[in-house]
Amino acid sequence: MRPVNRDKAILCCALSGVVANKSQCPAIPYTPEEYGEEARRAYEAGAAMVHIHARERDGTPSYRKESYAEIRDAILARCPDVVINFSTGAVGVPLEQRIHHVRDLKPDVGALNMGSMNYAKYNPRRKSFVFDFVFANPFSEIVCQLEAMRDAGVLPELECFDGGHVSSALPLIDMGLLRAPFHFSLILGVVGGAEASTESLVHEVRLLPDDSNWEVIGVGRDQWRLCAGALSMGGDVRVGLEDNFYLPDGRMAGSNGDLCAAAASLIRLTGREPATPAEAREIYGIARRSEA
Amino acid sequence: MRPVNRDKAILCCALSGVVANKSQCPAIPYTPEEYGEEARRAYEAGAAMVHIHARERDGTPSYRKESYAEIRDAILARCPDVVINFSTGAVGVPLEQRIHHVRDLKPDVGALNMGSMNYAKYNPRRKSFVFDFVFANPFSEIVCQLEAMRDAGVLPELECFDGGHVSSALPLIDMGLLRAPFHFSLILGVVGGAEASTESLVHEVRLLPDDSNWEVIGVGRDQWRLCAGALSMGGDVRVGLEDNFYLPDGRMAGSNGDLCAAAASLIRLTGREPATPAEAREIYGIARRSEA
Amino acid sequence: MRPVNRDKAILCCALSGVVANKSQCPAIPYTPEEYGEEARRAYEAGAAMVHIHARERDGTPSYRKESYAEIRDAILARCPDVVINFSTGAVGVPLEQRIHHVRDLKPDVGALNMGSMNYAKYNPRRKSFVFDFVFANPFSEIVCQLEAMRDAGVLPELECFDGGHVSSALPLIDMGLLRAPFHFSLILGVVGGAEASTESLVHEVRLLPDDSNWEVIGVGRDQWRLCAGALSMGGDVRVGLEDNFYLPDGRMAGSNGDLCAAAASLIRLTGREPATPAEAREIYGIARRSEA
Amino acid sequence: MRPVNRDKAILCCALSGVVANKSQCPAIPYTPEEYGEEARRAYEAGAAMVHIHARERDGTPSYRKESYAEIRDAILARCPDVVINFSTGAVGVPLEQRIHHVRDLKPDVGALNMGSMNYAKYNPRRKSFVFDFVFANPFSEIVCQLEAMRDAGVLPELECFDGGHVSSALPLIDMGLLRAPFHFSLILGVVGGAEASTESLVHEVRLLPDDSNWEVIGVGRDQWRLCAGALSMGGDVRVGLEDNFYLPDGRMAGSNGDLCAAAASLIRLTGREPATPAEAREIYGIARRSEA
Repeated sequence: MRPVNRDKAILCCALSGVVANKSQCPAIPYTPEEYGEEARRAYEAGAAMVHIHARERDGTPSYRKESYAEIRDAILARCPDVVINFSTGAVGVPLEQRIHHVRDLKPDVGALNMGSMNYAKYNPRRKSFVFDFVFANPFSEIVCQLEAMRDAGVLPELECFDGGHVSSALPLIDMGLLRAPFHFSLILGVVGGAEASTESLVHEVRLLPDDSNWEVIGVGRDQWRLCAGALSMGGDVRVGLEDNFYLPDGRMAGSNGDLCAAAASLIRLTGREPATPAEAREIYGIARRSEA
Repeated sequence: MRPVNRDKAILCCALSGVVANKSQCPAIPYTPEEYGEEARRAYEAGAAMVHIHARERDGTPSYRKESYAEIRDAILARCPDVVINFSTGAVGVPLEQRIHHVRDLKPDVGALNMGSMNYAKYNPRRKSFVFDFVFANPFSEIVCQLEAMRDAGVLPELECFDGGHVSSALPLIDMGLLRAPFHFSLILGVVGGAEASTESLVHEVRLLPDDSNWEVIGVGRDQWRLCAGALSMGGDVRVGLEDNFYLPDGRMAGSNGDLCAAAASLIRLTGREPATPAEAREIYGIARRSEA
Repeated sequence: MRPVNRDKAILCCALSGVVANKSQCPAIPYTPEEYGEEARRAYEAGAAMVHIHARERDGTPSYRKESYAEIRDAILARCPDVVINFSTGAVGVPLEQRIHHVRDLKPDVGALNMGSMNYAKYNPRRKSFVFDFVFANPFSEIVCQLEAMRDAGVLPELECFDGGHVSSALPLIDMGLLRAPFHFSLILGVVGGAEASTESLVHEVRLLPDDSNWEVIGVGRDQWRLCAGALSMGGDVRVGLEDNFYLPDGRMAGSNGDLCAAAASLIRLTGREPATPAEAREIYGIARRSEA
Repeated sequence: MRPVNRDKAILCCALSGVVANKSQCPAIPYTPEEYGEEARRAYEAGAAMVHIHARERDGTPSYRKESYAEIRDAILARCPDVVINFSTGAVGVPLEQRIHHVRDLKPDVGALNMGSMNYAKYNPRRKSFVFDFVFANPFSEIVCQLEAMRDAGVLPELECFDGGHVSSALPLIDMGLLRAPFHFSLILGVVGGAEASTESLVHEVRLLPDDSNWEVIGVGRDQWRLCAGALSMGGDVRVGLEDNFYLPDGRMAGSNGDLCAAAASLIRLTGREPATPAEAREIYGIARRSEA
């Protein structure tokens, strides 16, 4: 597909992953109140959507629906129109536990992984892998997740770590499990998946089906460079403490708001504007919260 | 890397996979003698290398060293200088059983899979997957295989089903497990991996490290088109009953020789020549059998 | 645009340029009868279209309408349904003389150059240019040619030597001078224009407007390789003594028929079939001669 | 070539073209003092190099050596180490007048056009071309310019408007007229040349010879987007009133300094830093002024 050069760029903030903790980055939220405050900072800096992995109040990963509900409520109390995006990705967690919060809480958007891959981190100084596992997301599970989202009226966010993950949408579209406009996330820079380069981004964008929106997710220090590449091509961007702690100048972010402020500046310097939540909803083809 | 436009194109023949059988294609070899005759036909038609998955005499897959040794001997009795290439890929077979024949029999080349992925086949008429599994090849196993090949003096063939598999060579090179010139196979057209297009081939070739040789492996009916694309870019090609039963005109091949004859014609029509086994050895940087 | 992978590939034969002569290649036609016989050989070998630069009977270039008419008649007497394609390109010839035969004789297709460029040939042994001139085709002349073709009901063949020439179609489409389906020729390998590589071909195909047919024209020894690349991508091909005298194996062609036979074999080895003139007309959206 | 991802990005400012005037943009400099002040503002905002088209004091274009000398002196009086870059491009001006200032004044860098092309501007509202001419830069003139620069010890800036212009460097390198490291400008967005897209930029960067530095020059409103694309790929950028009057938010720039400040922010938001003049000289392989 040829990307439309939209003037509005949707900024998504991934408030918190589940791997890192406050000792590594003090701004990572644990409690619903902290999630709410981080979401508010991101929203005030220009984010239209927040992507959420839930945690227990002690910071451990949570797959309980109640955790997701409390976090969502704390966020909506502060930014009532922000687009709510729940993760379903996790390693070693049964499918049912990764999808029940989406099915029952019906967020605006549910993110899912579109393929399997080696997922590794390599340390060139030690000449060894820091970690290395098979990230398994078989089609059978993808189909279950898409059926659940379709039934719940949730927009799927198709997370792709390589070109083959993008092309994997084609049979699912053919099966009627996905409907345009599609929403893709292109994640670059994980060892085992597509390399972190604008060249890879250009290739993957070319693979997208017609009528697709897409954002880039850069992992680690290449994030800012990839955001610039995506914005130049008419794409959207995701930043946030899940993906990267550091501002473009190398300082650790004091909050998700700091990261979103840098991303919003980058958006504006490419001649575009951060989309409001209402504009993001229109672009994604999803209802406003009041209408839902 | 920028591919060198070599005049000589190496033609590899994958004599037999382990999934299909004689009822689907009568020319598939089961016995060592049949392997030997199929290799001879391929060789006489222009193949410089034969890629081998072993079978028992009844056609069932074999991972026994003795099977590989008998097949190899039957082939070398007929074409003494052909480059011998053993598979190590299999689903649900322990690593040790997938590598012992390479370690002990020391073929010229050992093929290994460079990443994990969904491996599926989709039927658009039935709107469903024919099969769908996670093809798991974690870095830990890749490292074991490369160490075994390095110790045995076997050239690794790096089988890549997506761009991320190609980039996965970089840490392994940095660890000293791979040495130039590298030998890559770029497999296109498996659902879950890179799509079958010359555009994808161009992208993956760009990802190759400097000083790489590469061949394309097209699965099914797109094979011939992809061979033409690879040859146009200075790449090598693999055909054979493992990958595809059908000639360019749609008729079922009567032998691996038929497929190799078509591939050799294609090579010549692009202004190139099939490499002899001696030329292939020089390109790959491996010793002649008599010198080994 | 994403190219449709058509099963039928249109083979065009450029019977004769105006630069080379019989001392360089005896098969180059001069007289209408020779053009007719060469066209017949090309047609019998699989060509659906013949591209014509006219000559006087002594071999010098001709821009006289009468020459074009005689050549056309000699061709149609032998192959009544072949698609007739007249050149309008020439260096140092006034626009009116380059277009009057198209306006008055109304061939099926009229080829025109879509941009200006340096047009050179470099000799690496002598470290100097063999020739070097500015090939000037300003938009004002392109507009005149397209208006004349539109009024005469002639399909324009948009000859592009670089990416910018392809993109130059966009304002002309916007002005209503071009209508889909478009017919592009992508010429690769002239020094000053796009390099002769499948990578450049992939780039230019991506620039094509939707609903475009396209063929590759390779200049000199890279022609066969580029034909293979184009066929792999679903494109069409042009061969013939205007572009290249040599068969894939390096021997000089005895006729345009020899070159077309090699191209037809290449088409078939990619799993496609040469289109008949009737099929080519349907693909191009032009009438059959009897209906015109 | 694979671009090195340099941390330092060289910012060039094109202070003034020769087409526009103060009634269109009051900040355009005419007098040497105005050039000097504009250069100072650019330099203070992060520019390491200034690209100069000279004017007479009334704003008309000048090709006199004296004008270039006065402008240069006014600039060096304010920013003694800035890299001085003279244009040689002009339409309808004899070659000798376009090169004598470079030969005699020996700036650090001399920019020259690497090919011929249609050079046009299209108005989609009026459905007509605003202007349209053939921009002729034959190889014979390119060779003269490169010989003059080589003899004067001036680094050539190779201005490329399409892929073929980039590839045109290859014979010139082979002739010994160009030596690594090369310095390319990739200009995108002129009608007749390469389209303004990151995809085109990726393609042209792939065509660059090894050991090349490159910057993007975007024309008009797409400039900021293309700068982001180039920075994401490790490239350098040029802004300035010659190319574009407008800041990313659409307001007219009050000075070249405003444009450079926006570009420097963009550089920093991609995790890079504007190179100092000394760093730029090291990257380009040119001497410091005091050493020259």
